[in-house]
This record gives sequence, C-alpha cells and structure tokens, in this order.
Amino acid sequence: MVNEHSNLISTLETPCLLLEEAKLQQNVLRLRQRAQSLGVQLRPHLKTGKSVEVASRVLEQPGAKAAVSTLSEAELFAKMGVRNILYTVGISPQKLDRVLAIRSTGCDLSVLLDSIAQAEAVAAKCREAGQSIPVFIEIDSDGHRGGVPSDSPELNLIAEALVTGGAELRGVLTHAGESYGVSGTTAHAEFAELERRATVEAAQALRAAGHACPVVSVGSTPTAHAAQDLTGVTELRAGVYTFFDLVMAGIGVCSLDDIALSVLTTVIGHQRDKGWILVDAGWMAMSRDRGTANQAVDQGFGLVGDEDGKLFPDLVLTAVSQEHGTIVRRPSSAQSLPDLPVGTRLRILPNHACATAAQHDGYHVLSSNLAIHGQFWPRTSGW
Amino acid sequence: MVNEHSNLISTLETPCLLLEEAKLQQNVLRLRQRAQSLGVQLRPHLKTGKSVEVASRVLEQPGAKAAVSTLSEAELFAKMGVRNILYTVGISPQKLDRVLAIRSTGCDLSVLLDSIAQAEAVAAKCREAGQSIPVFIEIDSDGHRGGVPSDSPELNLIAEALVTGGAELRGVLTHAGESYGVSGTTAHAEFAELERRATVEAAQALRAAGHACPVVSVGSTPTAHAAQDLTGVTELRAGVYTFFDLVMAGIGVCSLDDIALSVLTTVIGHQRDKGWILVDAGWMAMSRDRGTANQAVDQGFGLVGDEDGKLFPDLVLTAVSQEHGTIVRRPSSAQSLPDLPVGTRLRILPNHACATAAQHDGYHVLSSNLAIHGQFWPRTSGW
Repeated sequence: MVNEHSNLISTLETPCLLLEEAKLQQNVLRLRQRAQSLGVQLRPHLKTGKSVEVASRVLEQPGAKAAVSTLSEAELFAKMGVRNILYTVGISPQKLDRVLAIRSTGCDLSVLLDSIAQAEAVAAKCREAGQSIPVFIEIDSDGHRGGVPSDSPELNLIAEALVTGGAELRGVLTHAGESYGVSGTTAHAEFAELERRATVEAAQALRAAGHACPVVSVGSTPTAHAAQDLTGVTELRAGVYTFFDLVMAGIGVCSLDDIALSVLTTVIGHQRDKGWILVDAGWMAMSRDRGTANQAVDQGFGLVGDEDGKLFPDLVLTAVSQEHGTIVRRPSSAQSLPDLPVGTRLRILPNHACATAAQHDGYHVLSSNLAIHGQFWPRTSGW
Repeated sequence: MVNEHSNLISTLETPCLLLEEAKLQQNVLRLRQRAQSLGVQLRPHLKTGKSVEVASRVLEQPGAKAAVSTLSEAELFAKMGVRNILYTVGISPQKLDRVLAIRSTGCDLSVLLDSIAQAEAVAAKCREAGQSIPVFIEIDSDGHRGGVPSDSPELNLIAEALVTGGAELRGVLTHAGESYGVSGTTAHAEFAELERRATVEAAQALRAAGHACPVVSVGSTPTAHAAQDLTGVTELRAGVYTFFDLVMAGIGVCSLDDIALSVLTTVIGHQRDKGWILVDAGWMAMSRDRGTANQAVDQGFGLVGDEDGKLFPDLVLTAVSQEHGTIVRRPSSAQSLPDLPVGTRLRILPNHACATAAQHDGYHVLSSNLAIHGQFWPRTSGW
C-alpha cells in the first residue's frame, strides 16, 4: 500500500517536524469528553503547540479559556481572539506593564503568584493603573515546585494584600508535577485527588475569610486523564495531551499510537561494525530531553519508525550531537538491523513533545483531509 | 561601584540571552594566535553563534574559511560574503540541489561524506549539473561518530568514485568528539595527535594513489587548544571556543571567567523551608543540556551569578521545567543562602553554549563600547 503521505514527505527538507492532525483531534476529543463527564471546564495549556492553528483545534470555541507559559503566547492568542487567558508562571513585578497592555486589548488575562511580596507588587500596579488585575494564588499540592500549602496562614495574608490593594482574587490553582514520576491510572488518580483536596481546602479557607474565590483550577496531563471525582473543582488544565509523547506513553497515559508528533530525518551514514545508523536529527531537532531515562523502559532520544510512522522493533535513537543522531538496536534485541541506505527517510517519536516542538519553527501537517495536505503551521517562540 | 551594564539589564525582558563582547573577542584572539603559532589556518565553526554579527568578529577577514552545521547557516553566511564554507554534516542526496544553489551564488561550499554510496550520489549530481562539487572525506580518528578509518581500503574506493564521477576531492577531515570526555591539556593533546595522525595518514594514502588531497582538516575546541604539533595538517576547526561554557571549563579548556554567554533571569518565588529560589529560566531558556553531569563537578543546569555576572559561591540551577528553574545551594556548602527577593535579576552560566544559545532568537550584547551598548544580534535557526 502506498502511503498517502509519502509524496509530501519526499519533498520535505530534513530534519523537520511532522504533526498528524487526526491524532491531534482524537487526543483533544478524548480529554474534552472526560472534562464534560467530570463536570468541569477545560482550560487547555497552549504552551505545547504555541500555534494559532493548533489552538483553534484545541479550544472548543473562540470564547474558551486557555493557559499559557509566556506573555508572548498570551499576546499571540489574545490577537487570535482568545478572551480568557491564564499566565501560569509566577509573576515578576517587571512583567506587569505587559500584562496590562494585553488586558487593554480586551483579553481577560490573569496572573499567578504565591507570596505577599508579589501580591503587594500587583496591588501597587493596580492602584497605579487605576484598574484591577485578576490573580490566582498557587497552591502546593505535592511539593513539586511553587505554591503555598492549603492550610498556610499566608494564604489569607496574600488574599488580603491583593483585595485591599485593588486586585481581584480570581481563584486558586495547583499543578501536580510529581504525577509525571508515577505510572498508571491508580497512581495518577491519587495525585488528582491531592490536587482537588488542596485547592478545594484553600478555596474554602479563603471564602471563610470573606473572599470571593470563584475559580478552582487543577491539572496536569496525567491527573486530568485519571481523576475520578472533581467535586469543588471548576476547571481542568492540561497541555501535552494534545500531542502526547514517549514520557506520557511510558507512564500509561496514552499508547504509542496516540503520539501525534514526530521528527522526520534522513539516513546520512553507517558504522556497520558497531551497528550504528547515523541520521541528520541531533539534539537541535530532538531537544536534549531524556524524560524516559528513569522510566521502566528507557527510550533514548526517541523511537524510530519508517517514513509512514511504522515503528521498527527495538530501534532507538541512542545518542545525539548538534546535528547528528545515532540509531542502534536495543542490546537485548533479537531483531536484525534493518537495511536503511543513505537517503532513507525515518520518523522519530519524541520523549517530550513540548521540548521537541520548541526546537522547530512549525509543523508540517499530515492532514486527514488531503485537500489541505501539506500545510505548514508556524509556532511562536521567545518570551 | 555601579556596573555599567545595570541600566541595560534593568530594561530587558527575562529570560534572555546576554553576550559579553569583550570576552568573545578575547576567546577569538586566543585561538587565532594559537593557530598562527601552530602554522595552520583557522576554520571557525559558525554553528555556535549562528549570527552574522558574531561571525564578523570570529572570521579574521571576509575571505576567511568557515564551517557550518546546516545549509541554512551556509545560506546566511554566503549572503554575508563568506566565500569558503564547509558543511560538516554527512551529506544526504536530497540536499545536493541546495548545495548547488548556494555554490551558484559564488560561495565555494564543500560537503562531507564517508561512504561509496554518498560519493556515487555526489558524482551523479555533478554529472547531472555539469559542474564539480568539492568533497571532504570524513576520517574516524577516535571511534566517536562517523568516518572511515585512515587505513581502510574504502578510502581509495570513495576517492575513485568521486573523481571518476566528476566531483573534486578537496581533502580529509576528522573531529575528535571523544576529547570532550577527558580533562586537561595532556589528555586533549593526545586526542589532537590522534586527529593529526589519522588525517595525515589518510591524505598520504590518497596521494599515493594519485589523488590530490590539498586540505587536511582537524579540530574540536579541546584539541585545538591543546595541540602541540600539527605537521601535515593545513587547517584547524573549532566552534564553542567563541563563547565557552561550563563543560569546557570543567575539562580545563577555559576558566569560568572566559564564559561570554549567560541567561538573564528574574526571581519569581521561594520555597524557603526547602532552600529553593524559583526563577523564570527553565529548559526553554537554558536547554536541557546536562553536559557537566558526568564531570568531576556537576554544575546542574548552570551556575548562578548576580546581574553583573559575579558568581554566588555554591549556588546552582538544579532543576528546570519549561519556564521554571529552581536554584539551590550545593548540599555540601557552608554558605548561607543569599537574600534574593522576588524581582531580583540573576545571570546563569550555561553547560553548553551551543545548546543554550539555540533556545533564543538572538543576543543582547554587553559591549565594551558603551556607544553601541544595548545592541541585539539576531540568530538564524532551522535547517
């Protein structure tokens, strides 16, 4: 069978990034249906795609909520018409003028913080500008990174500093980053319950002190796909679920076949005595992410398939330099090394979709609609 | 003392990339003088800087030789006026039309290969186009990646396929990638001698078979700074020496003070109980390169200095996610954690300059000439 994508692939310069639109749509639909059945709104994190075309497929309607990891993403998606955006990195005082500029375009951009010092800086900016900035307080549910504990007395002090200063307390937020380190639905559901309990407790404490705290926001791709009960939660965030990757497959959140993103590469040499196949995808094309290194199965820098995406058994991208990759058989393999002459096109599934996609200017789309086959969707970059 | 750069730094959005021009110039001068005293030409690798402004400081004159890692770099530097460029990644047949297009602009672009299959593809393209393409044969001097052994019978077969097919055998080339794994001038000098011996032997074998082989090209940053005798070699390649980094400092090629590149970041939070300082430089700003992980001193994702670049003793960027970094004291440290409130600017020295620079659109230049202070030098990207 001649693959419908072969003609496109033969015209592309390598290395480059391929995105299978049908898999993207299937991944998006899966979490959308989960959120509906759990009775919460979805706030997709657009940091994985960083693309207007991806965002238009991820957001259910233009009025949908979104999360971003940089203000340059916020600027892009606000211009696209997204009207409710949460900037999910703790705010520094220097970034507040840009936040106000984005808000002045009609986008309801909110910020995140976890300290009285930040709350006072936001409040001071609100007074200076004569307008309110909506704020989420970050709650630490699993000791992963930032956030205040849900039972901390600081919680009400932060809220107080915000509200008396003229800012708006929009809600509380947590992200169970530690959920990436465990495998299976049961383990992920436990982290989902940690997220739920921490944010609901924090919201209750704030409401008991007289604060409105309308939004209770939780999520990570593993917990979003495993949560059993989100009572008290109002919205669910996730990002990498749109593309999925080997890290997510390794902890059981998706199958290898769900991964929508791959890097197209070309064979440029061999060291036959060593069983090495050299390709033109190095860390510049793959990123240096080794997210599967501590998983049950280490996938090196990626799994190797043919140009149609069919994986070769036990073939792994094991080493990378800037523009070179080395493909080998797993030492344990009983398979023989396939014959892949110089010039052969291969596709590499990435460890971490966010990191690999960030190495590229955009996506060559393998569309299920052949009429629009061969589209290029640009990515934004920078901060 | 008020630092002359403070005013610039206070205006920059973070994270962003800083380049100290005086250190760049000092690093460039150091290797230029070495090459002169060794009696070889320098062919700087422009893959580290990927910038016209950096290249104009690295190349001694516009007619100088350069090496590149992508054809998009070759296009940029050919347009800038560089007239002798070597594309140092093994050529795939699909890239030859672009090679010819660049050559047609008047740039003497040469390609690299290490197999008869590639030689036949280049020869076929030469016949098809009615013009010669200059070719380097890659020699394997240390088992690191590609190349044929200097005593391989394949060497003359490749040369034969090239020359009878109408291509030009320009020379032989090697790169001792394994030199990055050892420390100190003595060890690096041994790899330099491996490079020299392998390429000179290969050139002699080719010449004995009647082939012209005018260029004998060796180099890596560690071997270039340690070579004692380059008899028979005609040119020396190196790239990361322009900026240097923690990996190069860790194996004794430079001092920490020679590192010209850093990432400017802002403190966005604390977890005081854990001794964590959170900053807005994650892997998107630093890359995921962990090149010092297996060195004598593991520098995490980078060493931390104040906004003037003065390093804090024992302060390390220990963990990164997409847009978050976590700074800690080394566990062994007797130092107390400095007080760095939210909003404080810090500078992080990178493990690997090529990888960190590739995460950014360009360089904010800390110039020794205050009249041109605050320049931005854009980088090229993609392939």
